[in-house]
Amino acid sequence: MLSKNTVKFIKSLHQKKYRSQSGQFFVEGEKSVLEVLDSDFLVDLLLVTENFQQKYARRLERFKGEKILVTQNQLEQVGQFQSNDSALAVVTMKSNEAFTPTRDELILALDEVRDPGNLGTIIRIADWYGIKKMVFSLHTAEFYNPKVIQASMGSFTRVKFFYGDLQEVFTKWRLPVYGAFLKGENIHEMKSISPGVIVMGNESNGISGEIEKLVNHKVTIPAFGEAESLNVAIATAILCDNFKRLLGA
Amino acid sequence: MLSKNTVKFIKSLHQKKYRSQSGQFFVEGEKSVLEVLDSDFLVDLLLVTENFQQKYARRLERFKGEKILVTQNQLEQVGQFQSNDSALAVVTMKSNEAFTPTRDELILALDEVRDPGNLGTIIRIADWYGIKKMVFSLHTAEFYNPKVIQASMGSFTRVKFFYGDLQEVFTKWRLPVYGAFLKGENIHEMKSISPGVIVMGNESNGISGEIEKLVNHKVTIPAFGEAESLNVAIATAILCDNFKRLLGA
Repeated sequence: MLSKNTVKFIKSLHQKKYRSQSGQFFVEGEKSVLEVLDSDFLVDLLLVTENFQQKYARRLERFKGEKILVTQNQLEQVGQFQSNDSALAVVTMKSNEAFTPTRDELILALDEVRDPGNLGTIIRIADWYGIKKMVFSLHTAEFYNPKVIQASMGSFTRVKFFYGDLQEVFTKWRLPVYGAFLKGENIHEMKSISPGVIVMGNESNGISGEIEKLVNHKVTIPAFGEAESLNVAIATAILCDNFKRLLGA
Repeated sequence: MLSKNTVKFIKSLHQKKYRSQSGQFFVEGEKSVLEVLDSDFLVDLLLVTENFQQKYARRLERFKGEKILVTQNQLEQVGQFQSNDSALAVVTMKSNEAFTPTRDELILALDEVRDPGNLGTIIRIADWYGIKKMVFSLHTAEFYNPKVIQASMGSFTRVKFFYGDLQEVFTKWRLPVYGAFLKGENIHEMKSISPGVIVMGNESNGISGEIEKLVNHKVTIPAFGEAESLNVAIATAILCDNFKRLLGA
């Protein structure tokens, strides 16, 4: 049975402060809950509807944590989804550990991307393009924000990431660093490219001055019309698409 | 002075029903209001703050419609922006007139794209890639929804569009029709392409069965990872980028 304390606890996880305190976050909806169950994340608590329980009975047998049967109405009260007739999982955050990149992979770095929807969409794009590692500046949106988790559509389970000082990180890595600027090399005209780090900047201000100094390849998404800019998630997708095309060529 | 009736009228324009009745919509924020003033849209009423009035005094001299001086607080009460210290314009909708495409341009068609944020973002992408004409199926999100206008970042002023039955339209035009499908030609491997219509489908269901029959070139955005799909605005951007690259090559 769903206790008042559990309801209160899950509701507290809507706020960053309480997520940080408990070291946990929540994941909701059929697809995302199934993906987090199959991932290397530790699921601590699972709220499931009768419907979800029946549909995935065999898959749930493997789950050894606490499981509570709830109604759709109860799920919708504790989560953020307007409609959720399947499940919600409370999950332990991963520790913030830096990874070591190899020289043959693309890495995505975000310099102060603040909007959770943008971060989640970018994680989904990275997953589409097989980019497995991301690094975030310290003030980039919080990975465990429910809006990030939702927008990533399950892709959050498949990315390695950490938050750190990008200046220090880039200096340590000594990899090629690519950034999108208005006056860079036209990415449609490039014939080849080396793997490295693609850095994407803040929604309003772009890549910060300190990070720009560490960008050694300025690239440009060619414009053919009059829009002044592209949304950061859109620009990320276009760069990833061009990089993968050029790396495959 | 801002009358109660004017407040009530502008607030009514948040709802589609009243937009349709009056044939008007509203545009808010510095950039979008300036763009609509410079466009071929007819601006009927302008609410401006002292600040906006002073900053753009010369530009506003040319404006012959009704202009009301308001406070930032008043703007925020009538509009949808949380913060707006500049202006809001009430604008006359354009009539829904079909255009005739030429054979050397790209046209974007949307088949039941329902989310206003996606529609606005797609309009901005079209504008970036110099696509000047769009056609929308009858149940695609409403162009004049405030969320569409906001997400388009002023690009809504630069696109020709109409709503119609896509089957009829495509049959009449007899142009190449391109659509994104999981099993199509890999767009990274294509060497050239002809101008035509790019059709994008619904967020959940993709391109509908009737429209699929009229697609004569199925193309695929190659995936390199495990995400099952891309958001429709992201997919639109990637297709437009590849089309412009191939057309320029």
